Amino acid sequence: MNIYIKNYIKILKNSGLDAFLITNDINIRYLTGFMSSDAWLLVVKGTLFYITDGRYIAQAQKNLKGIHVKEFKKTLIETAFDIMNAYQIRKVGFDSRHVTHFQYEILKEKSKSLKKISLVAHNGLIEGLRQIKSEEEIQKIKKSLEIHHKAYQYLKTLIKPGLSEQQIAFQLEHFLQKYNAGLAFSPIIASGVHTSYPHAKITARKMAKNDIILVDIGIDLNGYKSDLTRMFFLGRIPRLIKDSYEIVREVQQKAIEHIKEGVKACDIDKLARNYFKKYKLDHLFVHSLGHGVGLEVHETPRLSVKSTDILKQGMIVTVEPGLYWPKRFGIRLEEMVLVTKKGVEALSGHIN
Amino acid sequence: MNIYIKNYIKILKNSGLDAFLITNDINIRYLTGFMSSDAWLLVVKGTLFYITDGRYIAQAQKNLKGIHVKEFKKTLIETAFDIMNAYQIRKVGFDSRHVTHFQYEILKEKSKSLKKISLVAHNGLIEGLRQIKSEEEIQKIKKSLEIHHKAYQYLKTLIKPGLSEQQIAFQLEHFLQKYNAGLAFSPIIASGVHTSYPHAKITARKMAKNDIILVDIGIDLNGYKSDLTRMFFLGRIPRLIKDSYEIVREVQQKAIEHIKEGVKACDIDKLARNYFKKYKLDHLFVHSLGHGVGLEVHETPRLSVKSTDILKQGMIVTVEPGLYWPKRFGIRLEEMVLVTKKGVEALSGHIN
Repeated sequence: MNIYIKNYIKILKNSGLDAFLITNDINIRYLTGFMSSDAWLLVVKGTLFYITDGRYIAQAQKNLKGIHVKEFKKTLIETAFDIMNAYQIRKVGFDSRHVTHFQYEILKEKSKSLKKISLVAHNGLIEGLRQIKSEEEIQKIKKSLEIHHKAYQYLKTLIKPGLSEQQIAFQLEHFLQKYNAGLAFSPIIASGVHTSYPHAKITARKMAKNDIILVDIGIDLNGYKSDLTRMFFLGRIPRLIKDSYEIVREVQQKAIEHIKEGVKACDIDKLARNYFKKYKLDHLFVHSLGHGVGLEVHETPRLSVKSTDILKQGMIVTVEPGLYWPKRFGIRLEEMVLVTKKGVEALSGHIN
Repeated sequence: MNIYIKNYIKILKNSGLDAFLITNDINIRYLTGFMSSDAWLLVVKGTLFYITDGRYIAQAQKNLKGIHVKEFKKTLIETAFDIMNAYQIRKVGFDSRHVTHFQYEILKEKSKSLKKISLVAHNGLIEGLRQIKSEEEIQKIKKSLEIHHKAYQYLKTLIKPGLSEQQIAFQLEHFLQKYNAGLAFSPIIASGVHTSYPHAKITARKMAKNDIILVDIGIDLNGYKSDLTRMFFLGRIPRLIKDSYEIVREVQQKAIEHIKEGVKACDIDKLARNYFKKYKLDHLFVHSLGHGVGLEVHETPRLSVKSTDILKQGMIVTVEPGLYWPKRFGIRLEEMVLVTKKGVEALSGHIN
């Protein structure tokens, strides 16, 4: 049993649950290192069952050690309840964010018909564990970031007037393949006025002389992600763009300086927003400041106004302030940091 | 207002609903042609509201004609209820498969506090519409299939002893980029014994002399998908493989011959299973026979034992029987057909 499963089973015990239905792919991947479609992981009294259909049984058996692999013939729910019955389970937890209303109605029906089993809604038990990265996970994310840096070095030499956003994206993907890495989301490669959309879609627009380019890419290396944004400038940089860039950089540095164990995530977001306010530019910062990164490119904790997360040692978060001048241009700079007791370990260089 | 929205609003009226919350990205894309993250589409008395956050407002306003774009500051739910209050909505529908238990609890709380608004669970209203492809959609899928054919022609020249599964996948992705197309899912490029896993993961295994290779790829061209599986043989084909291939092809042709408007989807699956039974091989056909393809690579109707779908003119489905000899090899052949009144229009060639 690996450390992730051990920690999880400890939490279940403390919550007084006999059983838990894990219905989210990424959470299953986190605990077991394996993931297929149409699979649930059921924990019953410390024993794990990976339930999936005929397409994945052979692979699951090969990859999952110490976990029972069960094929479902009718539905995941039927098979899960068969196992719970055999183990005389009374109380089964499920993650409220990873079960649809439709699935819940069937679970409820089924548990009513059996009378003995009651359903308990939880949320974020595994996501809570996932927030704090193990040393192994930190190393994996650092490896992904190494490729990220190479990719930005490569883009620096690649991006030239005449090349389209699409062409840059294609070249980038091809570059990543050499490192067995992939893109974690549709890359944002926005040029000229497209930079004014925080999440612009890629177009056939060609780079022009004196263009400004925003590149926000996520990299996926064996399941672990990294996420950075860099600006590129082709030639002369007008004063307003230069000033905006410097303000965004300043705000980013101030925010990073305040990150450490024990600080409220929302306070870091507010601090960034207040710095922009000093320049009367806070209305141009239209998104939240950052987010956790791990098996998902966006995960908790959230660095946002609404966040209730508290920063802890071992969390890895992005810090990505931006300014978006409508119909003109936008600037975003995104770095990743590892939260420590007294501050941060910078995982990505500051300046491109 | 486009034809997709018009059809949908007609259905809502017939269901006696004042309003509907569309929470699924693909369904929003189907109706509006536009999609961002963190967005809901709210239909109130025939008026449409696209609700999203600050990152997507400018793009949404540019791309959505005749639809109100609303920025949410707190949550999607708050803003949706504000609009419904303003329109004095009494009954709002939601799709039970696209709302989590967590979201439902908040919706319920909110609607209780307002008293006047009641929630009605539905499912598959838009998916039902999406099953029947418009002429425009059929053309889009045919375009995707054209690239699919080119890709298989290319693979035929590419696949050689010494090349790894991963290398083939990389070359394939690069090839697709030339056509502005992408992969609809992680491609299945299984060689040798890996073909015995119906959904094998790509590995570094290199092609060997006399190898058998299963290639199952989905192509995404501007949102519309195509999905085909082909077998490749490097050299001598042992008798059992040859026989299995021919049986799978025979079963596939028999199944396709029985597809037409009005037939039960489950009956086509059963028919295929019964053909395998004649050869005492039905236990090696471990998955369902096929599925709809459109904006999603797997959508309804399902050609499976459990399916309750009835085939109708304008549906596009895969027919993909397979035989998987444990620890030895597997064969799958997947074609796409358009259901017509009297039979099918074959969308992909039969033999590779």
